[in-house]
This record gives sequence, C-alpha cells and structure tokens, in this order.
Amino acid sequence: MLEKTRETKVLRDVIHGYIHVDLQIIWELIDSKEFQRLRRIRQLGGDFQVYHNAEHSRFSHSLGVYEIVRRMVHEVHDLQMKLTEREKVVVMIAALLHDVGHLPFSHAFEHICPIPHERFSYDIIVGNSDVNRILCSYDEELVLEVASVIRYQHKNPILNQIVSGQLDADRMDYLLRDAYFTGTSYGAFDLERILRTIRVKDDKLVVKESGIHSVENYIMARYHMYWQVYYHPVCRSYEIVLSSLFKRMRYLYENGDPMVEELQMFVPFLGDHPSICDHFDLDENAAFYGIARLTKSDDEVIADLARRLLNRRLFEYETIMNDDEYKQMEARVRLAGYDPNYYCYMDTMSQSPYSPYAKESGSNIWVLTESGEVAELSQRSVIVKSLVEGDVKKESKVYFPDLGETYGKDCGC
Amino acid sequence: MLEKTRETKVLRDVIHGYIHVDLQIIWELIDSKEFQRLRRIRQLGGDFQVYHNAEHSRFSHSLGVYEIVRRMVHEVHDLQMKLTEREKVVVMIAALLHDVGHLPFSHAFEHICPIPHERFSYDIIVGNSDVNRILCSYDEELVLEVASVIRYQHKNPILNQIVSGQLDADRMDYLLRDAYFTGTSYGAFDLERILRTIRVKDDKLVVKESGIHSVENYIMARYHMYWQVYYHPVCRSYEIVLSSLFKRMRYLYENGDPMVEELQMFVPFLGDHPSICDHFDLDENAAFYGIARLTKSDDEVIADLARRLLNRRLFEYETIMNDDEYKQMEARVRLAGYDPNYYCYMDTMSQSPYSPYAKESGSNIWVLTESGEVAELSQRSVIVKSLVEGDVKKESKVYFPDLGETYGKDCGC
Amino acid sequence: MLEKTRETKVLRDVIHGYIHVDLQIIWELIDSKEFQRLRRIRQLGGDFQVYHNAEHSRFSHSLGVYEIVRRMVHEVHDLQMKLTEREKVVVMIAALLHDVGHLPFSHAFEHICPIPHERFSYDIIVGNSDVNRILCSYDEELVLEVASVIRYQHKNPILNQIVSGQLDADRMDYLLRDAYFTGTSYGAFDLERILRTIRVKDDKLVVKESGIHSVENYIMARYHMYWQVYYHPVCRSYEIVLSSLFKRMRYLYENGDPMVEELQMFVPFLGDHPSICDHFDLDENAAFYGIARLTKSDDEVIADLARRLLNRRLFEYETIMNDDEYKQMEARVRLAGYDPNYYCYMDTMSQSPYSPYAKESGSNIWVLTESGEVAELSQRSVIVKSLVEGDVKKESKVYFPDLGETYGKDCGC
Amino acid sequence: MLEKTRETKVLRDVIHGYIHVDLQIIWELIDSKEFQRLRRIRQLGGDFQVYHNAEHSRFSHSLGVYEIVRRMVHEVHDLQMKLTEREKVVVMIAALLHDVGHLPFSHAFEHICPIPHERFSYDIIVGNSDVNRILCSYDEELVLEVASVIRYQHKNPILNQIVSGQLDADRMDYLLRDAYFTGTSYGAFDLERILRTIRVKDDKLVVKESGIHSVENYIMARYHMYWQVYYHPVCRSYEIVLSSLFKRMRYLYENGDPMVEELQMFVPFLGDHPSICDHFDLDENAAFYGIARLTKSDDEVIADLARRLLNRRLFEYETIMNDDEYKQMEARVRLAGYDPNYYCYMDTMSQSPYSPYAKESGSNIWVLTESGEVAELSQRSVIVKSLVEGDVKKESKVYFPDLGETYGKDCGC
Repeated sequence: MLEKTRETKVLRDVIHGYIHVDLQIIWELIDSKEFQRLRRIRQLGGDFQVYHNAEHSRFSHSLGVYEIVRRMVHEVHDLQMKLTEREKVVVMIAALLHDVGHLPFSHAFEHICPIPHERFSYDIIVGNSDVNRILCSYDEELVLEVASVIRYQHKNPILNQIVSGQLDADRMDYLLRDAYFTGTSYGAFDLERILRTIRVKDDKLVVKESGIHSVENYIMARYHMYWQVYYHPVCRSYEIVLSSLFKRMRYLYENGDPMVEELQMFVPFLGDHPSICDHFDLDENAAFYGIARLTKSDDEVIADLARRLLNRRLFEYETIMNDDEYKQMEARVRLAGYDPNYYCYMDTMSQSPYSPYAKESGSNIWVLTESGEVAELSQRSVIVKSLVEGDVKKESKVYFPDLGETYGKDCGC
Repeated sequence: MLEKTRETKVLRDVIHGYIHVDLQIIWELIDSKEFQRLRRIRQLGGDFQVYHNAEHSRFSHSLGVYEIVRRMVHEVHDLQMKLTEREKVVVMIAALLHDVGHLPFSHAFEHICPIPHERFSYDIIVGNSDVNRILCSYDEELVLEVASVIRYQHKNPILNQIVSGQLDADRMDYLLRDAYFTGTSYGAFDLERILRTIRVKDDKLVVKESGIHSVENYIMARYHMYWQVYYHPVCRSYEIVLSSLFKRMRYLYENGDPMVEELQMFVPFLGDHPSICDHFDLDENAAFYGIARLTKSDDEVIADLARRLLNRRLFEYETIMNDDEYKQMEARVRLAGYDPNYYCYMDTMSQSPYSPYAKESGSNIWVLTESGEVAELSQRSVIVKSLVEGDVKKESKVYFPDLGETYGKDCGC
Repeated sequence: MLEKTRETKVLRDVIHGYIHVDLQIIWELIDSKEFQRLRRIRQLGGDFQVYHNAEHSRFSHSLGVYEIVRRMVHEVHDLQMKLTEREKVVVMIAALLHDVGHLPFSHAFEHICPIPHERFSYDIIVGNSDVNRILCSYDEELVLEVASVIRYQHKNPILNQIVSGQLDADRMDYLLRDAYFTGTSYGAFDLERILRTIRVKDDKLVVKESGIHSVENYIMARYHMYWQVYYHPVCRSYEIVLSSLFKRMRYLYENGDPMVEELQMFVPFLGDHPSICDHFDLDENAAFYGIARLTKSDDEVIADLARRLLNRRLFEYETIMNDDEYKQMEARVRLAGYDPNYYCYMDTMSQSPYSPYAKESGSNIWVLTESGEVAELSQRSVIVKSLVEGDVKKESKVYFPDLGETYGKDCGC
Repeated sequence: MLEKTRETKVLRDVIHGYIHVDLQIIWELIDSKEFQRLRRIRQLGGDFQVYHNAEHSRFSHSLGVYEIVRRMVHEVHDLQMKLTEREKVVVMIAALLHDVGHLPFSHAFEHICPIPHERFSYDIIVGNSDVNRILCSYDEELVLEVASVIRYQHKNPILNQIVSGQLDADRMDYLLRDAYFTGTSYGAFDLERILRTIRVKDDKLVVKESGIHSVENYIMARYHMYWQVYYHPVCRSYEIVLSSLFKRMRYLYENGDPMVEELQMFVPFLGDHPSICDHFDLDENAAFYGIARLTKSDDEVIADLARRLLNRRLFEYETIMNDDEYKQMEARVRLAGYDPNYYCYMDTMSQSPYSPYAKESGSNIWVLTESGEVAELSQRSVIVKSLVEGDVKKESKVYFPDLGETYGKDCGC
C-alpha cells in the first residue's frame, strides 16, 4: 500500500492549484467507479439555482479534502513524526472516500430514505465494490481501518479529528470551494497559515496561539457561508420544494401510483433495503430524469412540484415572528387551492459561529498557548469569547407558492 | 421592450463579477424554461473528465455572453451612438439565446441527429416556447429580428458581428470561462482592454491599433486553449467513445433493438422530426440516464461503451504519422476481439491561430490604423503575420481500447 | 469644473481594475506636483520591512479612494439623486486630495513635528500650490468647499461621511489595498455588495439590512488587519526605533548638534513654522537620505538607531503583564549600556472591532431596516452586538535591543 | 553551510504565496545590509510613473528568484539527483544575490558610470561586505563559487543556466512579478507546468516536449511585456529625461559646477573608482534626493530636467519613419530654445519574441523530444518557428518637450 506511482501525478484544481498523487492505491481509488460516480453528484445540491457557478461536484471536493490531508501529513511536522506511514495512507484514503456514500440532495432525500450517507460510505468500503476490491488487493485489513476513520472510531483519535473535527480537512475544503464557486469572498480564510500552526498535543489536533487570528477568520468565514449560502432563502426554497416532492412521492408510492412504481431509480429507496448497486445507480442524472418524468404525472401535485424544480419556479418566502403568522399563511395557501401539507412550510434557521462544549465529539477547537498548555479556543480569543457568550442568530421564514401565479404558461411538453 | 426592472438586478459571476440585468424582458427570458434548461447542459461536454473543475454549464456561459454584449452596447462609444435602442435590446437578447438550441455533447451527438444547434435555437425562438411567448408579449416583430441575428442575417451587420465574428462576445466569454474552470492560464486575455479599443467603422467592428497587443494575446489564448483543452487527447477520447456509442445506438435502432426503442429521450432524434418538446426533454440528465441504462443492454458493444463513459475507462491513444500506422492498429484491435468500427478511430486535429480570408463570413479581424484606415490584422501585427504565413500545426492520433485490460472488475450492478 | 476629458481616461489598478477619470479637473489635479509627490510616500511606512510586498504608495491609495467615491456618486442611486453635480465633483476632489498633506511615517514623525497631516492638506489646498492654482482656475469657491470636506465640516453632512465616516471610501480602499499587498486574506471584504446596499436616509449614509453580512465582514476584516498588520510587533518595532531616532534628533537639535543642523530636510520641522514648500521637499527619499547621513553622525545613539532602520536590525520584544515587568527590562537595558530613554519602550495596543457611541463624529454605522427605520448596527447584527458587548482585546509589549548583540559587523561605510 | 534553521521560515509573497527558507546561511544573507539595501531600489525604475502599482523593489524580486531556484533544485527530479547538496546551496545563494550590485535606474545611469551591475555584484561578494563575511563564516571557497555562477562561469554549466539562461529563474520571476504589479495579464504564464517539465540532458536544462505549450506561452508573455511595459513610450520617456539629466550632470561635473560637486551620492561615480561603500550609499533615496536638490540648481537645463522627473512632466513622443523626421524635430526643438543634445532623442526599439542562435551563450531553449533527443525549440514548435522566421517588430520614436508649454507654473519651492 506504500507503492509509489512512477512519477507524481497531478490534477489541476482551482482551489489547491494541483492535487498531488504519488501513491498507486490513491490513483486506483480515484479511478474506481464509485469514486467516479461523485462527478455526478453536485456538492451544493440546488444552490446552483441561486449561485449559477456553484455547479461543482463532490468529486472535486473529495479530491480537495484528500489534498489537504496529504499536505497535513507531509507538512505538519508533528503529524509527520507522530503518525506511522500506514496511518498516513489510511487517513488520506479516508479523506478521499468520506463522501462516497452521498446520494443526490442529501437532506431533502431523507423523506424517502433515512439512511445517512456515512452508512452508505461504510457499506461501499466494506461491501461488493470496486473500492473494496482495490483496498483488499493491497491489504485486507485496510478495509476496516479506513471505515473506522469514517465512523470517527479509529483507535488513533488524531486520524478521526483530521477528517471530521471542528477544524477538519472536510470543512476547510468545502468552505474554500463553496466560497469560490458562489463568488462570495466570505468563505476565504488562510489555509496556509492554519496548516503552518497546527500541532499535535495530548492526542489532540491543536493550533498554536500565534495562529489564533486565522482560526477566528475561519470561524467567521464559516458563519458567513451559512447565512449567505447554505441558508440563503432561495436555496432553502429549492430544498423545500424538493422535500415536498419526495414527501408526495412517498405518499403516492404507498398508495400504489403506477408512475412512481415505474421510477426504477427511486423505488428501491422507497422500500426497505436499498443495495449499494441501487445506490450506485441513483446519481443526479437519474434523479433529475425521474423528476422530469414526473412533470408528466397524472397527479397534479407531484407534476407541479416537478415542474417547479426543473423550470425554477420555486416558493416565495416571508420572514415570520411567530406561529400565528405561519397559521395565517397556511390558511391563505389552502384558500388558493393548494394543499398546505406540500405547499406551506415553516423553516427556522439558527447558527452560532462556534459552540464549544456541544455534545458532539470533537466540537471544540484547541489552542496551544505559548506556555505549552492546551486551552479551548474561546478562552484565548476575545472575539470568539464574545461570540460564544452573545446571542445566537435565529430566523424563521414561511415558504409558499406565488398565490397570484397561474401555470398555463407551459407548452405542455 | 425597453421596460426597466424596478432596480438593476445582479447575478454574481466568477468571470464578470456581476451579470447586470435592468430590462424586464431579459429578466423574464432568463426565467424561461428553455433558458433554465441550459443549466442542465455542460459547456464543455466531457472535458470535465480531464479538468475536474470544468463542470460549468451553458447557462452561465450564456449569461456571460449577454453581459459582454451589454457592456459593449453601453460602454463602447461607437456602439452606444450608432445602434438604436431597439437594436441594443435585440443584440442582447440574441446573445442570451444564441446557445438555447444546444443538445448534450453537440458534436458526438451528430451521429444520431445531424440538425445543428443553431437550427434548434431558431426553432425555439420562433416556435411554441416560453421564449417565444415572452418575446411576443413585448413585440411580435422581435421574434424574427432576434432569430436573424442568430442566423448572421440581421440587416445591420454590426449586430451579427457582435454575436458571431472573429472577436465576438461568444468566443470572448467561452475562452475566459473555459480557461478559468480548466485552471489553464492560457485562455486569459485582457477583455477590458479589448472593450476599450473596439470601434465601428464602415459597418465593421474594428479594433484601434493601440489595442493590437490585446488582440495578439487573444489569438494566442485561443490557439492555446485549442491544443491544451479542446483537443486534449483525453477529451478527444471521451468524445470518440461517445461517438462510437451513438453510432452503435443508430445501428441497433435500425435493427429494432428493443432496449434502444425504450430510450424515450433518444428515440425522437433517431427518427426524422424531433420537435422542440423532444429537444427540451433531452438534457444531460436524460442523456446520461439513457447511457446508464445501456450499461445493462444485452448488446455487448453498447453496454461496454456505456460503462466506459460512466466509469471513465476511455480509449488509449498514440500519435501516428500515416495511414499505415492506423491500419496496423486496426488489425491489432480486431485481433483482440474488438470491432474496429467502434473501437479504432483515427483523429486528425489541426488549428491555425488565425486564418484571415477563410471562406466563412466574418473570418477577419480588422484594425483601425492611426491614420483612420481599416486594415486586416495580419497587415498590422508582425506577430500575426508570422503566424499566418507559418505552418499550420497538425497532429494525428489513433484511439483504441487498452488491449491488455479485462472487464471482469465490475460488480455487475 | 464639470468639463469632461476628451475620452474617459483609465489607469490600471490592482484593486479596482481601472481608475476612471472623465473630468478635466481631476486629471489636472492628478498631474499636480503635490499629488505626484504622494508617489514618494509609502502607504504603510515601515511595514514593508515585515511584508516585503507592502511597498505601495499613498499615490495609488489616493487614486483608489477617489475611484470608490466616483463609483458611489455614480452608482449609488440615492447619492446620484440627492447630490448636486457640484457636490459630486467636490467630494471626488476631496477624496483624491485627502492625504495630500502626509509626511513620511506619520506617527513617528510627530516627535519632531506635531502638526497633523490634515492640517497640511488644508494648507496645501488653500495655499500657494499647484493644487490651489488648478482649483482656482475652475472656480475659486471650490477651494474652501473641498477643504471643508477634508475637515469634516461641509454643510452637506453626506459629503463628510463619504470621505471619513465609519464606512468611508478611505478605509474601504486602504483595507483592500493593504490586505492585497501584505498578502493577508483578512482584509478582503465585499466592496461590490456594500456599494449596492448603501442608501441615504435622514442625512445619513446607511446600509440596507440585506447588506448587513457584508458590513459584519468588513468590520472583522478591519479588526484582523489591525492585529495582523498595523499592530504587528515587527512593524511596531520599526516605528519605535524611528520614534527614538526622531526623539534623539530633537534632543541633538536643541543642543546645537552641527550635523543635525545640516539636515535641511528635517530642520524646518524641528523649528516652528514649516512651510508647504518645506513640506513638499520632505518626501521619503529626503527622509531616508537624512537617516542614511545620520549613520555617520558622531552621536553614537543616533548613528546606531539610523543603522538599525536602514539595515533592519530592529528591537526585540516581549509580551508583558504589568509595569513591573517593564521596569525590570528597563534595568537590564540600562545595565547593557543603553539609554532606556531611546532603547526601551512599552507599547500597549488595544482595538475593538467596532465602537458605536464613541465620541468622534461619525463613529456609528447605520442600518436601514426593512421597515424603513434607521438603527445603529449593533442593534441589528447579533454578531456585532456580541462583539460590542464583549471584552476589548489589549496587549502590552516591551521593545528593546538584542542585549547580546554587538555592532562590529559593519564595514564602516 | 547546510545548517538548517530551527524551523522553516516563510515570507509571504504575492507571486509565490510564500518564500521558504530553511538554511541558516540564506536567512543570514537576507538579513545582510547589502541585501536589505535592495528594498531601496525599485525593480522597474521609473515604470511606476505609468503603472502606478509597479512600485515593487529588487528585494522582493530577488527573493522570488531564490524561491524559484529553491523549488527547481528540490522539485525537479533531475536537478535533485544530479546536483550535489553543495551545488544546490551555491545556486540558491547565487539566485538570491544576482542583483545585489544594482544601482538605481540601471540603464540611464550608465551615462555617469559605465560599470555593469554584474561587476558590482561580483565586487560585493568578494569584497569587504556583510555578504562576504557571512559566506566566509561558513566556507571561504563559497565566495568564488557563488561569484562564478553570477559570471556564468561555474564549472557545472547547469548552475549557470538556472540563474541566467533563456528560461531562467530570473526572467521567470520578473515576468510574473512585473505583470502582476503592472496589472497586465500578458506576463502570466504557467510556472507550475514549466517546473514540472524541466529535465537535465547532456549538461543542458531542457523542457519535455509535453511542456512545449507552456514555453510558447512564456515566450509570448515575454514578448508582450516588452512592448506593453518595458518599451512603453511613457516609460521610455522617463528613462530618456533621466539619461539627459545624467548626461548634463557629467557635463557640469567636468566643468566644475559647484552644486554637482556637493552631490556626495553621485560624485564618486562621476570619478574613476567608485567603491562598494559608495555603491552601498547610492540607493534610490539618495539618488532622488540628489535629483530634488538639482531642481534648485543655477543651471537651467539640469534644474528643468530634475523638475520634469520629480513632477512627472516627461517628454512627448511621435512615431517616426526615418532620420529626416528626426532632423525636423531637432530643428523645432532648437527653435523653441531647447538644446537638442538634452531635449531631443531618437529611440529605436526592436524585440524578437525569441532568437535562437544569437551570439550570447545560453540563447537557445532546448526541448527533450519523446524519443529522447534534444532539439532547439523552433524545430519542435510550429508557432515558434513562424515567429523566428517572421519579421522582427521594430519601432522608432522621437522624444521632445511639449513645445507649447511654459514652466512658470512652479511655486518656486
């Protein structure tokens, strides 16, 4: 598994300049059909409906996460010294494969299939896949070791933190990449500086105190990306229309709708046990083709929702202060002839820039002070302390169709 | 048709910073379902298989062409003065819609359907479409006027040149955009400078002599993009596998293959008269879904070709000097059990940086000399003269499958 | 004064792309010798000793401030409507000239000459200068009107706020420019977005609520630039050595040192009434030439300090917690044979990201809420509220020479 | 001399991201006063009068050349293998120091002092300098070895080619850096790609054939930088006024002008044997201070020329076709009361994109063909062949003062 490629192979990348590959096993995994499938899943789901350049795939993001981890294990002196050569390969592979289990538009799709993508990633790594065959061809024990990092259960906690902590390679790549493709300067932070200040102390990834400004900057970048991109009301609107469509699809499926039953890409997920073959087949092309088919359904609700997604006639939205305002809108929606179950949705968003001591593992960022102690970030950063102790930003909106519009515009294709 | 939006609307764009829209008609056309469909057609077809960031769509390119034209008619003094307000709107609309007729992977698809995309663009503009309805709602005569620009037949030749000349908004946007997303610095040229030096003289778009360096740079950018991106052998390999698949699809269709007959997205194009509804339905999602279905075909050739495309197991290539070398490869391919008709292809690429006096209309770039005369570019640029008089770069390659490989790797999904 | 140039003139600029000039008066002012002198004053004083690319001058910054104001008065709808054409020209000129009174290394130089640069700017505008002659050649009343904006006393308060408020063109340009040339991503914020959300309400420049994220980002950018660049300890060290040198120069001058008396560039400022001719002559070349001369002084203190500046042998520094630690260092410095008066300095830095309700005029940023009211920023931004209510970051350091070093290294040139 | 710094030190740089230093000797050389002096010499002389951001110094350029060489000897596999550790250090030091002998505005200054900067670099390295002391403190033989690379005489020809060939680190850095700071996109080429395709073959630095496009691009970049920046007529105008001033200075000096005799920074260079101490003292601050003093000279010619430089009232220019046109202008200049000796200059510029087989050593770029042979670039590149065989661009201009202007505008400071 330490076998080198003949020469270092490089893939140009707009974020990292080049992705460098000099291990044969990495090169083969990139070529595996499960990894190639990630080219067919967009990183930001429907957000390209707002930010038209945000058309980038999970394929390029996954390469980016791998590249950050590759640099970490080669350039961060503590990691270079404290990880074994095997651990370095394991964590690079885990970084590459951490998103291999993604389905299209992850969150909305949970209305159909509640299995989390991490579970599919695990199943692909340990199951009957190209990926699995490649890993086994080098070392059968790699399989469970890689899978354990993805589950945050590797016995060396450093590996888990590299792939999924508060300051992990996954977030670092997606913030930079999503910022770049949405054209928001907000997500930019100083990756070079952070890499230069990372240390390992007491089984923790920590940041030297002199790098604290870069971390403050990273936290603000994250916060702004949430409000400017991930929670953008038009992005949310797309997601909500999609959720309504899947909700209706489940309803129709359970009521034996013949057209839904023909949608071979979705049916296995409406049932109990989708296989990794079913998973492989459900890329964005299949999903959108299915949705395009639904524009011709006899069920008016699902046909309308499908047309909304395809032709970008999403829901309108209003900020609301309380439940009553939502109820009023629900009544208006019903009065206009729409079923509020699918056409009226209250969405509450809240995001703190950084929440130490939350329950999830790895929710803290640790600082290595000049005197050599480890402290939680908000104890050392005046700015972060203010943010942690201040209020949490929260907003509620109600989403609903344009109540004046008519849909006669279609040519009926 | 000159009605303004309430305030200027902007769409962030990585190339132009912002796309500015302040005409209601433009805003509505962007929202039309035929224009929204362009989100589902990649600008560079399969090139993202080489340049993994090149996932951008014709939607963003079309907005970019519109934006360049919008700037031309507002910022280039001669255009501002010499075009009527109506002509300005017409040419902006034509810029926006010039690619609306594109099908997925244009060139390869010609094996199935030889109708050029300009023809579909025309049909959509004049036919039963959202786009047509919007145009008519403002002014019925707009329809034919916009369509005439797209056909290079508008009575004001300046409009035609703006959209499709040697130095047109279309090329300027795609060079910049494709360069950006492929990460090659080659495609960068100085758009600002070119816009500042454009003039109108004797019904020609010309460039002031002081802008000649920018034009030299643009020509070199174009030349390098051809060899580095558009003619990249792996991009070509993808295109060739795709062409073989479509060639086989036509063969199977003509022989009554039942699976091909079920592929509703392709069938209308295999027949005689695809409608604009058929065109609307055939986006990349549909095409790739169809190809994914073909991986399960009983026909081994098409199933193999489909798997190659999906899982990126493209053809190998070698540079060849003559037909004999091609014949030798053909024999080897046949010996290995492959039908050379689908598995062996000779590809000859040639590209001159700039060819004045070629037969196509608008093939020259004109320079306005300091003394006020109009001269063809190569008469005024020492560099361009050298390039025009020098040899034309030409390369032949043969494409073929890896003759040592086996396909047992698949899990059979 | 509204006379146009024959065609819009442009100056390429790394921050704004182009600086656009289409008024003859602006073009002449740029060509004035007082404005050209700004090419010889670096924007960041000695910071290029830390950030080696930060060699940019006040000339390019001043053009940048002008360009932002030019865009504001043309692109911000409220300003376009509510300012008269005359006011637009006045504020653009004031933006261009606001820094014309700068001397080299402003703050340190106050040890020699306590006159603030705004005073010199005023004197140049109203005095016997090229700038004054140009203004008068258009309209004599322009002189006092431009000067009043620079003094924050124009009768239209909007003009004052545009040039020097909390969200003024001056800060916006220097943050972007300094960030660019220091290579820190911290200073980047979204100028386009801010320009798009600026409104005028009740004689105040305000920002629409939808632009609040850009303003949060701008405030964080400012905060980070302070700590990463302006307060960088090596930048501070340079400033402190420079202050010591000027302090010693005053001492020597008052004691009749003959060499100092020969330094024609400094002498007028050591006396009582430097003229604007004296001001004109004291650019960075003159100042550094004077400092270079001092390396050959018989006074060992000033000769050593001058060599330190020239050859970058600045002071060391340590973080200290209290006055006692400073006293201890002072004793060590004295013991090593240095006069602590020049060789030991306690420096306390503190910076709040944003302080509404501070005493200075214009210290608030105002937000226009969706309901049309004007609120102070921290009332509408959860983040800013946290920062305002949180602690203020404060750090003390002591600066001193390397107590182990010797200065025999010089070749004695 | 192979001693490492405690940890890799980095200096942010806008071109290379970071300059990396991990050898103690490099760190000390950067800190030497002769190298620090390069902060006080602009890279592009007076070009910042045209491109106002082009204020960068030879200090940052020299760091950039060092960084490219550092990457070459570490990342180019052939160099990594074929150079000894000692040679790697030698060539990195030579790269760092290659410009240490520069005086301000090199070419114009030759009217005063014809000694080339390479000679001063040599003298500084072998003479009584900080630089020499640092080298000797590690290894006395380093001195002549480093000096030999700078003179293109090192016994290993590869080292000479790395620092000064046709595709050397010096040119690669200055093209990128000058392009960046002038804001012209022309100078951008793909450094990464070139570094990846460099090989060593038969004692030559060569480029793999697959990198030929990057080299074509680099040649065009170079060509465009010449015409757009280095030969820009306003940059030339500045240089010509400067040359006239130095010519007049020599005349006055030879005629015993008392003010010139007082200009201590220039006098040693007007005489016979300027020392390296004289060289050290003549930085741009001293030179410009001297020029500012000359504005007050009794000699009207030199006073006028000095004011022109300081206040940017440069010469006008016209394109001319032959000597007669020059003679006519000379007559007009004389008639207007100017001495044509200082006020009329004919300037002929010519630049071929690439000239193989020119007489200078190292004038070719070599390509390593796929079959392993070495060929001269124009034999393998269709584009370069065309350029080499085409005409050479040549332009003549005459420079002269605005014959209508008067100089009464000065306030007489």
